[in-house]
Amino acid sequence: MTVSPSVRQPSVEEPAVEDMPLMWLRDNCACALCRDPRNGQKLFQITELPAGLALGAVRRTADGVEVDWAPDGHRSEYSRQWLTANRPGTGADAADRPGDRRGETGKTLWTAADLDGRLPEADWADYLGDPVVKASVLDSVLGLGFALLRDVPCRTGQVLEVAETFGYVRETNYGRLFDVRVEPDPNNLAFTGARITPHTDNPYRDPVPTLQLLHCLANSASGGDSGLVDGFKAAALLRAEDPEAFAVLTRTPVPFRFSDARTVLEAERPLIDVDGRGRIREVRFNNRSMSTLRLPADELEAFYRAYRTFAAITLRPELQLDFRLSPGDCLVFDNVRLLHARTAFEETGARHLQGAYADIDALAGTLAVLRRQRDAAGAEFLDGLSELFEGEGAGAYLGEPVTMAQHMLQAAARAQEAGASDALVAAALLHDVGHFHGPLTGEDLMAGTDNRHSHTGADRLADWFGPEVTEPIRLHVAAKRYLCAVEPEYFGLLTEASVYTLQVQGGPMSAPEVAEYEANPYAADGVAVRRWDDQGKDPEAPAPDFAHFRPLLAALLRTA
Amino acid sequence: MTVSPSVRQPSVEEPAVEDMPLMWLRDNCACALCRDPRNGQKLFQITELPAGLALGAVRRTADGVEVDWAPDGHRSEYSRQWLTANRPGTGADAADRPGDRRGETGKTLWTAADLDGRLPEADWADYLGDPVVKASVLDSVLGLGFALLRDVPCRTGQVLEVAETFGYVRETNYGRLFDVRVEPDPNNLAFTGARITPHTDNPYRDPVPTLQLLHCLANSASGGDSGLVDGFKAAALLRAEDPEAFAVLTRTPVPFRFSDARTVLEAERPLIDVDGRGRIREVRFNNRSMSTLRLPADELEAFYRAYRTFAAITLRPELQLDFRLSPGDCLVFDNVRLLHARTAFEETGARHLQGAYADIDALAGTLAVLRRQRDAAGAEFLDGLSELFEGEGAGAYLGEPVTMAQHMLQAAARAQEAGASDALVAAALLHDVGHFHGPLTGEDLMAGTDNRHSHTGADRLADWFGPEVTEPIRLHVAAKRYLCAVEPEYFGLLTEASVYTLQVQGGPMSAPEVAEYEANPYAADGVAVRRWDDQGKDPEAPAPDFAHFRPLLAALLRTA
Repeated sequence: MTVSPSVRQPSVEEPAVEDMPLMWLRDNCACALCRDPRNGQKLFQITELPAGLALGAVRRTADGVEVDWAPDGHRSEYSRQWLTANRPGTGADAADRPGDRRGETGKTLWTAADLDGRLPEADWADYLGDPVVKASVLDSVLGLGFALLRDVPCRTGQVLEVAETFGYVRETNYGRLFDVRVEPDPNNLAFTGARITPHTDNPYRDPVPTLQLLHCLANSASGGDSGLVDGFKAAALLRAEDPEAFAVLTRTPVPFRFSDARTVLEAERPLIDVDGRGRIREVRFNNRSMSTLRLPADELEAFYRAYRTFAAITLRPELQLDFRLSPGDCLVFDNVRLLHARTAFEETGARHLQGAYADIDALAGTLAVLRRQRDAAGAEFLDGLSELFEGEGAGAYLGEPVTMAQHMLQAAARAQEAGASDALVAAALLHDVGHFHGPLTGEDLMAGTDNRHSHTGADRLADWFGPEVTEPIRLHVAAKRYLCAVEPEYFGLLTEASVYTLQVQGGPMSAPEVAEYEANPYAADGVAVRRWDDQGKDPEAPAPDFAHFRPLLAALLRTA
Repeated sequence: MTVSPSVRQPSVEEPAVEDMPLMWLRDNCACALCRDPRNGQKLFQITELPAGLALGAVRRTADGVEVDWAPDGHRSEYSRQWLTANRPGTGADAADRPGDRRGETGKTLWTAADLDGRLPEADWADYLGDPVVKASVLDSVLGLGFALLRDVPCRTGQVLEVAETFGYVRETNYGRLFDVRVEPDPNNLAFTGARITPHTDNPYRDPVPTLQLLHCLANSASGGDSGLVDGFKAAALLRAEDPEAFAVLTRTPVPFRFSDARTVLEAERPLIDVDGRGRIREVRFNNRSMSTLRLPADELEAFYRAYRTFAAITLRPELQLDFRLSPGDCLVFDNVRLLHARTAFEETGARHLQGAYADIDALAGTLAVLRRQRDAAGAEFLDGLSELFEGEGAGAYLGEPVTMAQHMLQAAARAQEAGASDALVAAALLHDVGHFHGPLTGEDLMAGTDNRHSHTGADRLADWFGPEVTEPIRLHVAAKRYLCAVEPEYFGLLTEASVYTLQVQGGPMSAPEVAEYEANPYAADGVAVRRWDDQGKDPEAPAPDFAHFRPLLAALLRTA
């Protein structure tokens, strides 16, 4: 192998291609001969790569590495970013990676106490309207195994619309949706008023539906409360407490069967399915439809011992999260992880849920697309701020000897010098964006009409930042009026323009206004931003440009 | 344990409950306290069974065994049939059982030569009209991994109707159906004219669709031939030739990824998925969408070595079954087993397939229901025959000193005494059923109008028996005319009634008729049935009743 003169030396952190498995490296070539530029799909067979593959010339470039391959002379480029993100990891790294988030390493396992009474929930309107809320709901289904949508319209068939917001309905012999209520000749205990212990649905199907939705239309019956158990947690407890029982349940295929007048379904799958590295991937648990195991007697003995041990764990009260579905609630949960249960209810009472099945891969895909879109929108938002600082902001003077851009950059620089949190630096940096683009601008303020720029700025930023950024901004005008009321020497520090706007904005606070201000949890942060605001009006003071603050802002964005 | 006086001793073949795992036995109690009689679902939790479970009294009954359990006094009954069918097996039995037929033990693995040019195929109209044909098609998909339907109407959307004959369409980001034809801006190589090597679809989905349908609407392009490779066979070859490579592929999660403007999908699954006993269950193979593996370097080396070895096996020409889809063909195949491929084609030529995904569990369920229905219909058919022998047939005399029932039973008895095959015994037994229920009956024949009863009988029986039963029946009248022509002494053996009907039926055969008769592959069987027919007219001759022959008939039924 010859290494040609390199443009630069690899940095310490950057893994050297010379240490990487060559077939893997070559398989990841992204050139137009190797991948269709229209769709990113690989164009060659792994068998087409030469058996005696070797590195020819390796050239460091500004952006990464360029490789000439022997013996076929193919040329590949790998960016530094790609090399860093994909470098062959250690064994421990590999086992801990969440991967596709279907296995236990991509989940947060829980007992009821871990959730501390807080269900992952969202209002239906927020879910539909705010991509960050929607992403949070979908992320809960992936991470915790469930989420609860509130105030979903109580319409028959609505459950299908819920499913279609993130994926595709999995039709089964029960239809596209199924009604869970008391039926005269039930083909399933679900359609009686009986208590149902924690279980997963449809274990007799393969592939089993990975998601279930239950939409409550009526629940005035006595009883009929809901319960959820994290089957991955139960399995992890079994592994910790009785590893041999865990192993038995992962390797014993269990026949499940459902049969009615029109249907016969059978599947043989283990109660706990693990991946090739032994990580929990799926749990199937349903005593009602477990069929007769046909195994050697010693294996039956071992299975039943393990099965009883696991069943006892699933029934531990501390594992079960109890709640009650109200009309309008729609529960979305992972049917290959969470066990669901319900208490018995009076068959004469009104209890009506509509259910549907769907799959979690599409849900994860919807979340990934939301995040991609949100990331793109976030970059666009930061581009817009950057343009504001470089364009309009650089031209605006509101009676001060600095431009608006200089003023805000100086305020942020003073905040950063003072060791402020990133959120407060961001607040200082953006505290005056309300002067731009609103129905009333900074020019209106200077002409005697309060443009309430602290509020319009905070509101406009709330789509992208949390209250730790927006609320100090919202308070920075009130803070001036507050300081004038409580610090006699403060008024003397104000610039002429600031004294002018103080009157437009309402003058010093009254005693009741002071008390109200002090009750605001962001009162101190508002004062802090105010002081950096006041310090940002020196035409001689140094300040970095917007690009300096951009990574800090990017890290604070409310991403999906 | 006390064993109470038993009504009978267990037979040698019948396993003793005393040797069975008790928890398993009790879990299989089918009493109304243990299972809901309305739906067969289990009503108790495994944890509710007493830990110190023991057999109390065990009583042999006429039908099986009755058990009183200690310490709780519960009573269970187990039929002999259940005990025999479900007795705990040996280890080898357990590993070889086909189970739900999703794993390799439920399949027939093949190379192209094994199919010997014969595709499992059926005409669409037959598939829709004949449950035996439909069952055979569905069984091929389960057993061989595919089947081809011919003459499916060339209508857009028809592929969905095909899927709905056995299951439910799995909707994806590609829609309920997708068009496979050249597209201007393809998000997938499938939508170009490129050669596509053997692969499974949608490995970036989890659960992956287990079935795919491809319906050919047009294929006049040059190229675009189809190929199928049995991925289970390829995996089994890898296991035999390179067990370590097989093991690596079963335990290495491989990231697959698909991304376009509206979609991001990712799944991490092994190329070869095995069950807890190491049996092949699923194959995923798609070089196009395999993403970057992130593993320790030594695991990457091992994976790539194994992956190349497996890929080379999938490309062996002897594994690939080549054929060409014509308009109206609809291929249904197992997408977690078979790899499909196509040769390149001229992008200007007309090639248009419509595809859809579905799942194999519903297909297996449809087959199970068809078989259950067919079994019930078969029992009903045999009941009908039994009634014929005991009712109408026992009353009918067509000029002979025996009833029709006696006549047919005697013919069958003579066939059985002669050591005839079961099919010929059945043909002898049923040779005259055409005399009943047709537009013309035996009475018409005796009145001088040929009722062509050999043909109406054979046609009526063809729904339930193969040609080895129906064709000798069809020929048994011709055989009389044939024998009269070729055996001078035969005519003298005929009864008076038979001499009469010979004339109605056309008299002795002419020489061309004789030649034609002898060319029939069932000619000898027709003669044999004829001779037993002639021997079945002795009022003194012994013959068993219909019940004696029923099991023989049941075994010959064309079941689904």
